[in-house]
Amino acid sequence: MTTTPERPALDRLLSPRSIAMVGASNSPTRIGGTVFGNLLRAFPGEVHPIHPKDEVVQGRTAFRRVGDLPEPVDLAVIAVPAPAVVDVVAECAARGVGGAAVITSGFAEAGPEGRALQDRLTAVSRETGIRVIGPNCIGFMNSHGGVMANFMITPDQPMPEAGPVALVSQSGGFGSYITNKAVLAGLRLGWFVSTGNEADVNVATVLRHLVERPEVGVLLSFVETLRDPEVFVDTARRAAELDKPLVLLKAGRSEEAARAAMSHTASIVGSARVLDAVCRQYGVFVASTMEELLDLGTIFQDGRRARGNRVIVMTSSGGAGVLLADEAGQAGLSVPELPAEEQAALAADMPVPFYGSTVNPVDTTAQTTAMPGAYSKVLNAVAASPSADMLAAVTWAGPGPANDAIVETYRTTAKPVAILSTAWSEQFQRAGVPTFTDPRRAMVALAALAAQSARRPAPPGPARFTADAARVRRARELIAEAGRETTLLESTGKRILALYGVPVTREELVTDAEAAVEAAERIGGPVAIKAMSYRLPHKSDAGAIRLGLRGAEAVRAGYREMLAEVARREPGAVVEGVLVQQMAPARIELTCGVQRDPVFGPMVAIGLGGVLIEVLSEAVLLRPPFDVDTALAALGGLLGGRLVTGRRGLSEEEQRAAARVMTGLGELALELDEVAEVDVNPLRVADGVVLAADALIVVNHE
Amino acid sequence: MTTTPERPALDRLLSPRSIAMVGASNSPTRIGGTVFGNLLRAFPGEVHPIHPKDEVVQGRTAFRRVGDLPEPVDLAVIAVPAPAVVDVVAECAARGVGGAAVITSGFAEAGPEGRALQDRLTAVSRETGIRVIGPNCIGFMNSHGGVMANFMITPDQPMPEAGPVALVSQSGGFGSYITNKAVLAGLRLGWFVSTGNEADVNVATVLRHLVERPEVGVLLSFVETLRDPEVFVDTARRAAELDKPLVLLKAGRSEEAARAAMSHTASIVGSARVLDAVCRQYGVFVASTMEELLDLGTIFQDGRRARGNRVIVMTSSGGAGVLLADEAGQAGLSVPELPAEEQAALAADMPVPFYGSTVNPVDTTAQTTAMPGAYSKVLNAVAASPSADMLAAVTWAGPGPANDAIVETYRTTAKPVAILSTAWSEQFQRAGVPTFTDPRRAMVALAALAAQSARRPAPPGPARFTADAARVRRARELIAEAGRETTLLESTGKRILALYGVPVTREELVTDAEAAVEAAERIGGPVAIKAMSYRLPHKSDAGAIRLGLRGAEAVRAGYREMLAEVARREPGAVVEGVLVQQMAPARIELTCGVQRDPVFGPMVAIGLGGVLIEVLSEAVLLRPPFDVDTALAALGGLLGGRLVTGRRGLSEEEQRAAARVMTGLGELALELDEVAEVDVNPLRVADGVVLAADALIVVNHE
Repeated sequence: MTTTPERPALDRLLSPRSIAMVGASNSPTRIGGTVFGNLLRAFPGEVHPIHPKDEVVQGRTAFRRVGDLPEPVDLAVIAVPAPAVVDVVAECAARGVGGAAVITSGFAEAGPEGRALQDRLTAVSRETGIRVIGPNCIGFMNSHGGVMANFMITPDQPMPEAGPVALVSQSGGFGSYITNKAVLAGLRLGWFVSTGNEADVNVATVLRHLVERPEVGVLLSFVETLRDPEVFVDTARRAAELDKPLVLLKAGRSEEAARAAMSHTASIVGSARVLDAVCRQYGVFVASTMEELLDLGTIFQDGRRARGNRVIVMTSSGGAGVLLADEAGQAGLSVPELPAEEQAALAADMPVPFYGSTVNPVDTTAQTTAMPGAYSKVLNAVAASPSADMLAAVTWAGPGPANDAIVETYRTTAKPVAILSTAWSEQFQRAGVPTFTDPRRAMVALAALAAQSARRPAPPGPARFTADAARVRRARELIAEAGRETTLLESTGKRILALYGVPVTREELVTDAEAAVEAAERIGGPVAIKAMSYRLPHKSDAGAIRLGLRGAEAVRAGYREMLAEVARREPGAVVEGVLVQQMAPARIELTCGVQRDPVFGPMVAIGLGGVLIEVLSEAVLLRPPFDVDTALAALGGLLGGRLVTGRRGLSEEEQRAAARVMTGLGELALELDEVAEVDVNPLRVADGVVLAADALIVVNHE
Repeated sequence: MTTTPERPALDRLLSPRSIAMVGASNSPTRIGGTVFGNLLRAFPGEVHPIHPKDEVVQGRTAFRRVGDLPEPVDLAVIAVPAPAVVDVVAECAARGVGGAAVITSGFAEAGPEGRALQDRLTAVSRETGIRVIGPNCIGFMNSHGGVMANFMITPDQPMPEAGPVALVSQSGGFGSYITNKAVLAGLRLGWFVSTGNEADVNVATVLRHLVERPEVGVLLSFVETLRDPEVFVDTARRAAELDKPLVLLKAGRSEEAARAAMSHTASIVGSARVLDAVCRQYGVFVASTMEELLDLGTIFQDGRRARGNRVIVMTSSGGAGVLLADEAGQAGLSVPELPAEEQAALAADMPVPFYGSTVNPVDTTAQTTAMPGAYSKVLNAVAASPSADMLAAVTWAGPGPANDAIVETYRTTAKPVAILSTAWSEQFQRAGVPTFTDPRRAMVALAALAAQSARRPAPPGPARFTADAARVRRARELIAEAGRETTLLESTGKRILALYGVPVTREELVTDAEAAVEAAERIGGPVAIKAMSYRLPHKSDAGAIRLGLRGAEAVRAGYREMLAEVARREPGAVVEGVLVQQMAPARIELTCGVQRDPVFGPMVAIGLGGVLIEVLSEAVLLRPPFDVDTALAALGGLLGGRLVTGRRGLSEEEQRAAARVMTGLGELALELDEVAEVDVNPLRVADGVVLAADALIVVNHE
């Protein structure tokens, strides 16, 4: 299940035993001074400055050149002007250095010359095997190894507490935000890696490396462009196997942002919808904001898992309790009413008279908080409730008995806990109590934890797909019939679909009216006739279609009139034949197709079709290969589930049939690279049957 | 446009010149001690403790009873056990006290006995005219008047800086959160009022009072149950007239939360969707989280307005810039590319070589931040850009030149500014610089500000509606035909709709087959026939409908077969007649109706209809009276705008026709109180025409 890296692994680069810095400076306000100062903070091994003139840099003996280094260090940190970088990296490679972290800017983000420099840097890395992070990055932090190879904070600022959270980010500036925030909010950040322009290493390759490391329990990532999608998907599978949550924040979702991203790290921005779909399919959490990325890190860092999705809410503020219950419901969690005996037991510990609630939310009122011992007793009872899998508790208090009780209960329960507080208290941070400053943020985090806990250990669907050579041959023969045409005739497209198990309307291609009459008789019932021409992709606009013809006379007349109308409207169009087609009934019309994403490749889409397709553009997307169960689950997510649960929604039989259409299109996309696009619209659904009533297949001839 | 309060205004209660406290205590840990201590903090007038035994409370001479007070104080704060409260309030009224803030719990939230106590409290207030906030509240704060009549913080905790923000909340616990957060985040909170169980005063009445106060510029509110919807709507109109933003956070949206709210303040929870719709209609901002409520307070508190929705983003972190641009786009703001000459001017102030961007987001890179003067120059140029109406700037820095520059630019520009920072800096708080800790939160706030700025000063639609007596009479004659039946026949319903200008299908009610044939001829084209019976509300389930009948033979046969089937399936159903009806074409089917919300009364709904109605439950809601323009705007919001912009969406003519159906139903709902529900489904749309093809009207006979 794991990929074999073709290139030297990232161990020497990211977990070095010795370090050199080219561009180390004695000036603390220069980046070369800040980074070198940080390197000296905690690294247990040798840190060698390289400096053209100074003998000593920040107390360490400097070397003139990389070639003068007394040993082939594992990591070289590079902060010299851009034009010098490539040669320095080449020198490093020659000296046997394992990897380089290139802080310097002025590469692909800085126009054509910089682009050329970066290409040379990539080439050096490829040719020599030296691994490179950056250029144009803020460096990285490996707290476990004592490596502060970055300028995200200055040497005098506090370091975040080391822990199981790893963050990998294209953006370097994000590193400053996250480290400051981590210190503030108690996120125990063991790793931060910024990848910058990604001349060699990218976010996916770093995640793939870190997911295997035992000290890493939670993977957070921030990307603008996801390179190496296969590595990313493989990381997601591996993270699922190891039960390590993987969270992604994606920038560049809007057009405004796409333009900004392009200009600042020379990125190609893929489709945000496709990325979301791929993440859902492979179990990656998509954070919708910066703070949510941190919140998920916070809830996951203690490694707890929930046995179900039931939350018990304890509050001394009724309003906050209601908001928490609200957000629990919206996040898909339940806040079950406690059974009478549990309520009675809770009530016994409450003040008398008691004006709160023991139902859940358990509202202790402010009185309980003030009573010595009572708050703690109730909180422990609530945490021990067999009716709930997770605990959310509210505190507006400052240091004192209530907060002491929260810390104590957190320590003694194995259940996941989320505290709603005005701000992050130092006491909770020290104790590792996950704290959230808004009810929604608390419940979104608990819901993610519940989802991670409920996940089956194996990733969904088959990992490998084997093409069916005979089917491919037959499909290519059909494609060849189109010659140099790129849009296949509907009749050809449907024959290809049939090869992949997609049920299509009964139909025959004919070339004269009498043959049409005979075909209509064989098909039975009313028929549609459609003129097939490479020049008429939009048949109804050209009058190239007649619907609901019954009996020989109607078919004959329709045939004649249709061809006359086509000849009048589109005089240049050669008609290759006429398709006589069963009229398929439809209670619901779906549309199903294949598109190719520049990042993730083929994606199968399914959504509502027919007249409303433009009105309702909602669709779900799956990346092949996937199995029927995955397709069924995706269908179940359409229109908020109403497509399958509505009274007139898809029956189980129809769902299975539609799912098989999806898997068929997925196989088609994997087997036939030359198929650029498939559009089955409508896919008519009625009486347990789905039928492709029209099909558009576009091919690339290379 | 303003309501005339029937009861004494809230001035004496909320802006007292003298105060007494019943239940004042010498023990600082008791609520009576905390509140009294708070009262002494800043109040410039007399504060009299009332105590049965102690001669002096916290240094002030105590009185035995309210009757002993030397003067009829404006405000009495009451924190005595629940059973004593009603008598104390009555005593206060007798002594001429203006208002009472009842902190005590144990009323409606505590079961039937408490409910009875509260009813007595309400009665005393009504009978004597004394205004009451609470019971079961945390009190209130009027910073401008120096009134800290609450226990939301203890006397030793810092007070939030006074300012233009007013928060009115049913929940008292929310007060602790908001005051702590306000201190933390620099929200200048001049007013906080908790209304608790709302025996007299409620959130709407307090908002209505505060909107008129000159020192109040921004109104925030948190409600579980909105009582006095008319007062709320009136407040919204008045807030719009005065250009004071009104923001609402509503708890109890989910079923889980509704149950919690019911148990904790004895609330009836209305429909969250209706409340959202009413807020949209009247220009009230709906905050989706606690933090968003505060964020909107933060962006609005300096009173700035934007001339448009263009944002310029300045960042030293490319990634943060992209996220801000993303969120701007998602919030409906634009991040326009700067013209070449502006970019050139910016570039002149940047370091050389410069690897950032001047496009917008303007990415200065970290180098610029470090260069003395450069950051400030660029920031000022960016703020002065004629290409943008608002400024969003990123800083991860601590105190220093960059943050000084931000404060200076904020002071000198008149444009709205939002700063994205890791945390709230003291420096920004002192200077009042609006700061946000997440890109989404910053852009949601700026978008709200842009929306407030773009608002036309007058509230939309007519405020008053005058019933048409002749039409009401005619409609009631038709309703009377149903006798005691509550669901009108379709044929009757359509005649009522026609009175209100709703176009209905051509149709005739007949009682024999030959009359049906003749009616079909007069109507023309294919017809539908439907058996009319009070026992058959679901006609198709009972076989009581035949569609697409053409010609005398088909009508005659259909009539016979239909009645036979109805007789077989529903032997008990009396058929009052058969409706012969035009078959209306439909490119799109809508559904339009009226429902009555327990809080806001009649609401007109419109959404997609027909087969998909259960699959797609999205609809927009309007509260009558409203005009055609308001209806058109609501239609434009359906399905994310695609219903009116899609290629096969509604034409302008069809939009106007649908809007007139909505205003007609709105008038119907206002004129006919006995109509509980109207359901026009489908409303068939084609070729510029909309036609009600079916109608269900349910009436209450009182």
